[in-house]
Amino acid sequence: MNPLHHIPTAEDIRTTHEAIASMIHRTPVLSCRSIDAMAGASLFFKCENFQKIGAFKMRGASSAALRLSDAERKNGLATHSSGNHAQAVALSARLLGVPAYIVMPDSSPAIKVAATEGYGARITFCANNQQARESTLEKLVAETGATFIHPYNDYNVIAGQATAAKELLEDTEGLEAVIAPIGGGGLMSGTALSTRYFAPGLKVYGAEPKEVDDAYRSFKSGAIQHNTTINTIADGLRTNLGEKTFEIIQQELDDIFTVSETAIVAAMRLVWERMKIVIEPSCAVPLAAILAQPEVFSGKRVGVILSGGNVDLGKLPF
Amino acid sequence: MNPLHHIPTAEDIRTTHEAIASMIHRTPVLSCRSIDAMAGASLFFKCENFQKIGAFKMRGASSAALRLSDAERKNGLATHSSGNHAQAVALSARLLGVPAYIVMPDSSPAIKVAATEGYGARITFCANNQQARESTLEKLVAETGATFIHPYNDYNVIAGQATAAKELLEDTEGLEAVIAPIGGGGLMSGTALSTRYFAPGLKVYGAEPKEVDDAYRSFKSGAIQHNTTINTIADGLRTNLGEKTFEIIQQELDDIFTVSETAIVAAMRLVWERMKIVIEPSCAVPLAAILAQPEVFSGKRVGVILSGGNVDLGKLPF
Repeated sequence: MNPLHHIPTAEDIRTTHEAIASMIHRTPVLSCRSIDAMAGASLFFKCENFQKIGAFKMRGASSAALRLSDAERKNGLATHSSGNHAQAVALSARLLGVPAYIVMPDSSPAIKVAATEGYGARITFCANNQQARESTLEKLVAETGATFIHPYNDYNVIAGQATAAKELLEDTEGLEAVIAPIGGGGLMSGTALSTRYFAPGLKVYGAEPKEVDDAYRSFKSGAIQHNTTINTIADGLRTNLGEKTFEIIQQELDDIFTVSETAIVAAMRLVWERMKIVIEPSCAVPLAAILAQPEVFSGKRVGVILSGGNVDLGKLPF
Repeated sequence: MNPLHHIPTAEDIRTTHEAIASMIHRTPVLSCRSIDAMAGASLFFKCENFQKIGAFKMRGASSAALRLSDAERKNGLATHSSGNHAQAVALSARLLGVPAYIVMPDSSPAIKVAATEGYGARITFCANNQQARESTLEKLVAETGATFIHPYNDYNVIAGQATAAKELLEDTEGLEAVIAPIGGGGLMSGTALSTRYFAPGLKVYGAEPKEVDDAYRSFKSGAIQHNTTINTIADGLRTNLGEKTFEIIQQELDDIFTVSETAIVAAMRLVWERMKIVIEPSCAVPLAAILAQPEVFSGKRVGVILSGGNVDLGKLPF
């Protein structure tokens, strides 16, 4: 495989899926009668909380790492991430036998820091804003010669994230819509591409916290908008879109829904209580959107990407 | 099927399994590389937290309900239970179209009370001790003509609980030991019977909180002992053995291990964090025992019955 310099094609996503197969789990699709009754819809949850490192990010990181040349890879992989992408890059590096250098905001959940260190990565902390992340990373890359793997704004990463929806579509019959959360947009754009390629005709929706609704405003205005605060419990969704993810999202999505913090916590609790699975707050955002939009989802068979399960049990919102 | 008046045979358990198949889920067996590494063993978790009503109790309640005659069943089912058995009897009654009358201690977790009411059962609260439960139930049965389904000391219930281990043994190759938690002993005695019948030669272990170690003391002394306190977070394991469950446990078990409250909470947290599944405290007791007894379990392939996932998220121990 060579690095991708274009929006991933159906064939690119197929090739990626075969290449990363040994580095990821094929996660189950679960359903829950009592949540279906509340939603008035048939929901099929793609459980990326059971993915390696506990989140879909392993798909994109392994995809990007595998598309590097030996020369690019030999000094290691580097990235900045609030957590799940950090673990994904760390584990990908370990599986490929090269070092990992990770820049993390000093507000990152303890469980994510510990897990990243557990995969043997070297961590550099920085202030919790985009500029601090990028400048710290730049310095680290200059010092080590490692190759930067962007958390989302990278076609190789997007091709990896697309494999989650590809599996969901292969494993679930008769879906009418697919919905995913939007942070930087890697999972969302990959989900949209796979759905358009492998199940044309389905609706593709995104869901985002009201408090960090950059994707919603970008989608509606046609130009990338930025978040002015990061005031959401959904710590995986605080980042802004990149130009690559925005282009795909703008072309391919049918709509984006925003949800309140209260609705996110309620949906998260509902999944824990009824499905007996641990999901992180970011992961509950699409279900919160479905429950708030019965006029869109009622009576439909909907695929829901549950993005991850790395939550700090010492800091639960209930 | 007729009511059982003897220790269930292999054939009784097979018949029961076929009869209750439409009333239960065949739950998955999961494994977790990082917990295996910590235990130094290969653990296969039978996930009864994904069972209907969120716990194995659905197996025993549906088994007992199905073995009643129409005349016995027509005035409804009744029981006393700290929670999971209550939900199981309530759902079994609903599936069979008869009323359910449930006596619950007033200290029962809110989520269990709400769920039992959700299945349409009529709940009568009582003080949190065995005597109050039994006298309140007796009165209720006299008033309604409902049939009492004992939570554990009933061969029909034991035959149902035995089907969890039967499935685990069918779905997992090369097990060397099986371990289950012990409360009243229904799950434990059923697990022991299925293992002896369907996989002779395996070790069968029980696990119990140190704070309510009646089964441990009964097993070691050869006579039923009682708990003097109920001071454990494992709310499903506070009850004493019955004479039917004790007889099977004494005959069939290889050993019983007791574990501290700290070890229970740590094992529970480990499963939530690493496996991303919600289990209740009672459910963590066998894993706590495995982690505390490396001399017994090291290098072994061990089946672990995860008994349930009904936990009050508003009252977590971390």
